[in-house]
This record gives sequence, C-alpha cells and structure tokens, in this order.
Amino acid sequence: MRGLLGIQDLPRTEIERILDTAEAMVEISQREIKRVPTLRGRTVINLFLEPSTRTRVSFEIAAKRLSADAINVSSSGSSLSKAETLADMGQNLAAMNADVLVVRDRTAGVPKMLADRLPMPVINAGDGCHEHPTQALLDVFTVRQSLGTLDSRVVAIVGDISHSRVARSDIHAFTKMGAEVRVAGPPTMLPAGIDVLGVKACFSMEEALDGADVIIMLRIQRERLEQALFPSVREYSLTFGLNLRTLALAKPDAIVLHPGPINRGVEISGEVADAEPSRILDQVTNGVAVRMAVLYLVTGEQA
Amino acid sequence: MRGLLGIQDLPRTEIERILDTAEAMVEISQREIKRVPTLRGRTVINLFLEPSTRTRVSFEIAAKRLSADAINVSSSGSSLSKAETLADMGQNLAAMNADVLVVRDRTAGVPKMLADRLPMPVINAGDGCHEHPTQALLDVFTVRQSLGTLDSRVVAIVGDISHSRVARSDIHAFTKMGAEVRVAGPPTMLPAGIDVLGVKACFSMEEALDGADVIIMLRIQRERLEQALFPSVREYSLTFGLNLRTLALAKPDAIVLHPGPINRGVEISGEVADAEPSRILDQVTNGVAVRMAVLYLVTGEQA
Amino acid sequence: MRGLLGIQDLPRTEIERILDTAEAMVEISQREIKRVPTLRGRTVINLFLEPSTRTRVSFEIAAKRLSADAINVSSSGSSLSKAETLADMGQNLAAMNADVLVVRDRTAGVPKMLADRLPMPVINAGDGCHEHPTQALLDVFTVRQSLGTLDSRVVAIVGDISHSRVARSDIHAFTKMGAEVRVAGPPTMLPAGIDVLGVKACFSMEEALDGADVIIMLRIQRERLEQALFPSVREYSLTFGLNLRTLALAKPDAIVLHPGPINRGVEISGEVADAEPSRILDQVTNGVAVRMAVLYLVTGEQA
Repeated sequence: MRGLLGIQDLPRTEIERILDTAEAMVEISQREIKRVPTLRGRTVINLFLEPSTRTRVSFEIAAKRLSADAINVSSSGSSLSKAETLADMGQNLAAMNADVLVVRDRTAGVPKMLADRLPMPVINAGDGCHEHPTQALLDVFTVRQSLGTLDSRVVAIVGDISHSRVARSDIHAFTKMGAEVRVAGPPTMLPAGIDVLGVKACFSMEEALDGADVIIMLRIQRERLEQALFPSVREYSLTFGLNLRTLALAKPDAIVLHPGPINRGVEISGEVADAEPSRILDQVTNGVAVRMAVLYLVTGEQA
Repeated sequence: MRGLLGIQDLPRTEIERILDTAEAMVEISQREIKRVPTLRGRTVINLFLEPSTRTRVSFEIAAKRLSADAINVSSSGSSLSKAETLADMGQNLAAMNADVLVVRDRTAGVPKMLADRLPMPVINAGDGCHEHPTQALLDVFTVRQSLGTLDSRVVAIVGDISHSRVARSDIHAFTKMGAEVRVAGPPTMLPAGIDVLGVKACFSMEEALDGADVIIMLRIQRERLEQALFPSVREYSLTFGLNLRTLALAKPDAIVLHPGPINRGVEISGEVADAEPSRILDQVTNGVAVRMAVLYLVTGEQA
Repeated sequence: MRGLLGIQDLPRTEIERILDTAEAMVEISQREIKRVPTLRGRTVINLFLEPSTRTRVSFEIAAKRLSADAINVSSSGSSLSKAETLADMGQNLAAMNADVLVVRDRTAGVPKMLADRLPMPVINAGDGCHEHPTQALLDVFTVRQSLGTLDSRVVAIVGDISHSRVARSDIHAFTKMGAEVRVAGPPTMLPAGIDVLGVKACFSMEEALDGADVIIMLRIQRERLEQALFPSVREYSLTFGLNLRTLALAKPDAIVLHPGPINRGVEISGEVADAEPSRILDQVTNGVAVRMAVLYLVTGEQA
C-alpha cells in the first residue's frame, strides 16, 4: 500500500484489507502493555500544519503502540502559495530517512502534492475540504462492528456537507462498501450536483432519517454562522439537530456517529450523544486501531 | 491509588507510601541508563492547558524513565465555561485507552471534574489557586531527606498565600505530617480565616521565621503588582524577601525551599538561592522521583 | 568531548574525530530498523528558544535513533536580559539529571553561558549571529564525502556573511580543514576586517567562484530587505544569486551547498537547487549522522 491520500481512488478490496488489519490492532490497545515491536526503528513524522489535537494524538498513540519513533511538527502558517516551501520541507524529512509522513493541512491537495514528490508513503490526516480518509475508515469500521455488514445499509450524513472533508470521504467509503448514502442539511450547505457521487440529497431530517440504519452528524463550525449559511444556531438545531425526537425518525436500532469534537445542543443533543445508540467513543477507540493498521500497511507489512 | 487530585483528602499513610516509593525512584535517575521497564506500553497523557515548562518536563521525564509512552497535549484556551468540551476531550483520551491523565489547568476543579467522569486515574499537576499536590509531596520529601522527620518541625511559608496552589497543598501536607506551619505575607496576600487550616498567620518575617526549621518562599507573580497587592517590588523585597539578614532570623540550620522559577532579588536573593541552606535544586531532582512514584502507584503498582 | 559550543576553538583532530564517527552513523539511518541502543536511558533536552523546525527535528531524530529519551522545550521569548532565568532553567534541567542539553537561542553566547554553569554537556544548535557548529560539521562532512579531501579546496560562501552563524562556523571549519575560503556578498553584508579570519572577501560572483570547488549559498532573510542592505530581491538575485550562468563560473565539477530552507529564485535558482551539483539533500541526511556522532561523543562514547 503506497500511502493513503483519500478514499475516492481506493478500491473496496483495499478498504476491506485495512479494516481486517484494524481488527487485529484493536486488541493491542486493550492489553496492559499496549505496545508491539512491529515498527521499531521506523520514523513517523506527524506534520500537522492545521491545529489539531485529537487526530494528532490518535496518530501519535498509534505510532507509539507499534513502537515507531513519532516526531511531531506543527506550524500555524501554510497555504498553497507556500507549496514550494512545503515540498522542500517534505524533501528534507525524506532526506532524514523518515519512513512515513502523516500530513494535515488547511489546503486541499497538499498531501497529494507531497506524495507526488516524496519517496516515502504519505498519509492524509485531513486536507482542507477535500478528504479525511482515516476518519472515513474508522467510521466504516465502527458501523461494520455494530451492524456486521454495510451492504444495503442506509447511511444518513447530516450537516455542512459542502465544507466537510469527513462527508466527502464518508460518501466514498460507504458507497463503495455497498451502503445507500443520503446527505442532509440546509440548501446552503449541500453542494449542487452532489447526486453524481451516488448519494441522495435531502432537505429535511424526516426525509434523511426515514429508514436509516446509521446517522452521521457533522460538527457545525460556528464560524460558518457569520457567513450566514443559516440564520442562527437555534434555528439550525431545531431543523437539523439530532435529539431524541429526530432520532426516532430513523430505524429503531439505528446507530449514531460523529467525528468530534461535538457541539452539545447544536448539531447533537447531549442526551443522544451519551445514549445507547451513540458510537462516538467507539469511533475514537477504533481510530487508533485503524491508524495503526494504515501505518503498518504503508510501511510494507514487515514482521 | 486512584489518581491524585490534592493533598487535602490524602491520609498521612498515603503520603508516606508515596514518599517511600519515591525513595526507590531517586536512584533510577542517578544511573547511567535511567530507564526501568515498569510502565512499558502504558500511555501517559500530559494535558497542560496552562503554559508550563518545568512541571511538564518533570512529568515527561518521569514517564519516560518508567518506559511509558508520554503524549503531550497543550492548549492556550481553557476555562470552566468550556468544561463540557474538556470533559469530552477527556473521554476521547480515555477511549484511546490512555492509562493516566496528568492535567494542569488555570481553573480550580478541572482535575476533579475530569476524574469524576473518566475511568482512568487523573493526576493534578496544578489547578488554578486550588492545589498542586506533586509539588507539596516533593517539598515534604525534600524536607524529610534533610531533616529526617517532620514531626514538630516549624515550617514557614512566605509570599502570596491567597493565590498560591503550592501554599495550599503545602499547608495540607506539612500539617498532616506533624509539622507546625506558619504563613507570612502582606495582609493583602493572606486569606482571612487561614487559621482554620491549622496554620498561624504572621505579618512579619521576624514573627514567621523565629525558630523555623524550614522556609518555603513563594514566587511573586509580577502581574500581581498591577493589582496593587503591594506598593512595589522593592518594598516587597525589603519586607518579605529572604536574604542573608532575614535568613538569620530562622534556626541556624534552617533549610530553604522554593517551587521555582525564582525571581532573584525579589522574593529571594541570589546569595540565599545559591547558598548551602538552599534545597531548591534538590526539590527539582526529587520532583522527578515523586512523579515517578505517583505514576507508578496510580497505574496499579504492577511489577 | 565536553560539549560543542562552536568550531572556533575546536582542533582539527576533534573535527576529524566527529566526521569519522559520523561515517559510522550514516549507515544506521539506512537500515529498516533505524535504531541502536547506544544512548538508551539517556535524557537529551532540545531547548529551542528560537523557532526552528528542521534543526530541532534533526536533533530529535538523531537522539531517538540512538535510543535516547528526547524532550522538547520551546519558548518564544528569550534574550540576554533573561540570562539569569535561562541559567536557572538550565540548572533545573541538570537537577532532573538531563544528560545532554541541545540549545538554540536568538542571542549569541547563550550556549556558552549555560555550559559554564551546568554540569552536563551543552551542544550549540545555533546562537544568534555567532555559531552553528553542527551545520558546519555536516557541511564539511558533505564536502569530504563528495571530494575526498578538503586540503587546498576552494570554498566560496555567498550571501549575508555579517549576519550568518553558518558562515562564521563554516569559515572556521573549512579553514581548519585546509581549504581556501572566500566570502562574497554586497559590501553591506561583508563584515569589515573579515580577512583576519583567513578568508578572502570578494565583491562579485566572478571573483568568488573562479576556480571554486565548493559553493555554499546562504539563505537571504527577507527581513533584511527592509534594513536596506540591498536594493531589492531581484537586484540581489541578479548580482549574487546562483543560477546556471553563475554556476558556470566555478570549476566544472563544483558542488553546491545550502543550509536551507532555500529561497528558490532568490539566492539560488530551482534549476541549480535540483541539479546534479547540488548536495543540499545530502547535507540534510548527513546532518542526522553528524548530530548522532556529536550526541554520542559528548555522552562519553560508552558502549
């Protein structure tokens, strides 16, 4: 496996191989001694050019549980205008014999640009509004864990679809795995022509959740409010928030996912976030396992 | 031992158990190979939401000398209004199977709030003006190392008692260990009713240091100056600073502690800080040992 | 070897010993398992008080490949007025039994000040406009790797010589190794009396590169522009930039070095940076090996 830039170009068989590998990784984190020597002496660089805590910590823990040396690099300023500099930085890291480059950037396409120029595998940890493939993989993993198969499952993704790299990666992942995907949100948050991705656009929770097996709620970025994509937080919450009332629109045994961090009382009520159908913390746990699997597969699956 | 939130609720026997365990840890840091496999494969999260260098480094070194995987998380913004978010972050870290959470925050009560909601042990590395228990433990350890016993020793704590978590934890720790504790500072820096904690409030160095075995000088926060808690640095230094003249007010073999970083020439003169009675660097050395002991005890004392 | 503060006071035999040790280190980074147990249980502190990514990552990787525990400490504010505080911080790190202190600071002399006061070896990772000894060592190593010997080689260093710690360390290192060193740049960037260092000052690329075996291009700090040290970036680039035309002024098999990060199109054209004579990425690779060698030698060469 030569890096992981997105789900869009990943065949279903590859997705399944990652999920199957992650199954084996779950158990390692449940041990008292959560460490295997698999990647001992490998250098994993976490290049996080957009602030992030959870994803960076998840990758760092994943690397360390595989005994890799994890090096964190962060920076506030990065943009495509600096692409050249970023490529030089990548070449420097390659020259230091880094084995894997995990990269997050505000700008879509940065991981691809780096992968095209660098000899080592690049893992996209989120690039602008483009993709966040390990998030989609852990979402699929979590659903498979709960529901067994994804074939013909109805998955509703609700929120700011236009600006969400999670939505984009999830759409690719769940459709490839045989699920029926619906997206829902205010018209200002649904990209025109989204149906070409094989998903159905819904403009109400009723329409989106009817018969849904899986509900994926997206975080509402409060800064979007200022862009007037919807009138108010309260309005959004009433129309597209998930609470006990709207949860009842889905199948009785539907499960709820959220990439985190959640805005309690905005896109999801605390009652639902902490309730039985919620798989939010399972996602976090599975995130470490999926990232361990990806780190393992891109480094060549040795020993 | 289920975490360490403060000294106030810690029985004397528990304090002694930590100190005795720390004795065994001191020697590890004196070896050429300063590393034992005790916590191999354990994940220790250092969640420092208030800027800190010394305490974070001390905890990180302590974790690494026990072979734990130490993960640093820092952030500038945190307050009780964000408590919900912080609890969610803590639950995320728990879901990643973190074994220990070390937390520093500007807000009193944050470690307790996290400990109440999380399955793993929480160690308070300083919360607002509340407590800083590992500092008090290393202070007690350092005094015991120098003076043998604490029973009936006279301990004078000098400085901004009202705003000091170190003072609060030290008062609890030293009184529990049988010492007689006095606090001293300008009236604006002594909380009313401090005597209910079993300590004597003194308003001059003469009164505080007469017969003292131990002098603990607190750092004066220069930002307090602007709050007009005292007229000027020079005035404070003349009245409550420790120098060769005021040191002579204490017992001839009195020892001097300071939690650091010291303001030379403000609360303590360079002459005293670097003189024989100073135990300031011993405190730093012992800090690593005490934190190793606490990490070891809260993770269940396995092999 | 008792620390590494600069090249100025380093005898040629010591330089050669470091280079020879680095030869043995190169191979470790080419292995699949890039890790030897040499410094297991040693604590290496990377105290970077001036922002840096590349050098910090290089030292961190070097420490980890030797199995040391690397602790990063960074801070935005540091100046000689804070020297006292910095010394106290150093003494704290020593009290925590740190084995090596790697320090970068905006102020010349800080590593020396710390080394004078601390028991552990201090490695200068760049101090103001003073020295950057590991950079010079990796430069010499890289040239030796390409050209075999440095004796009588002509080395041209081009750029802002006055403000460059790299230039200063390189001048010392290459002259000690028997090379003939020339420096070139606009008059505003050449210190008066530079010839006392045994180098020749040149005021044109023609003069500097005629017969040169090695060309070391320095990064132009754009903030210097505002100080009017030269009229414009374009003007600088035309006069002192290295491109295919000016490269042809040197010997046909001349090699090109640059400490990075490069300003493509300013002091060096992309064509030259990526061309066959460029040793820029070799420098980065060798930087890890040289730093491994220095860490190994200052900790006493045990095992």
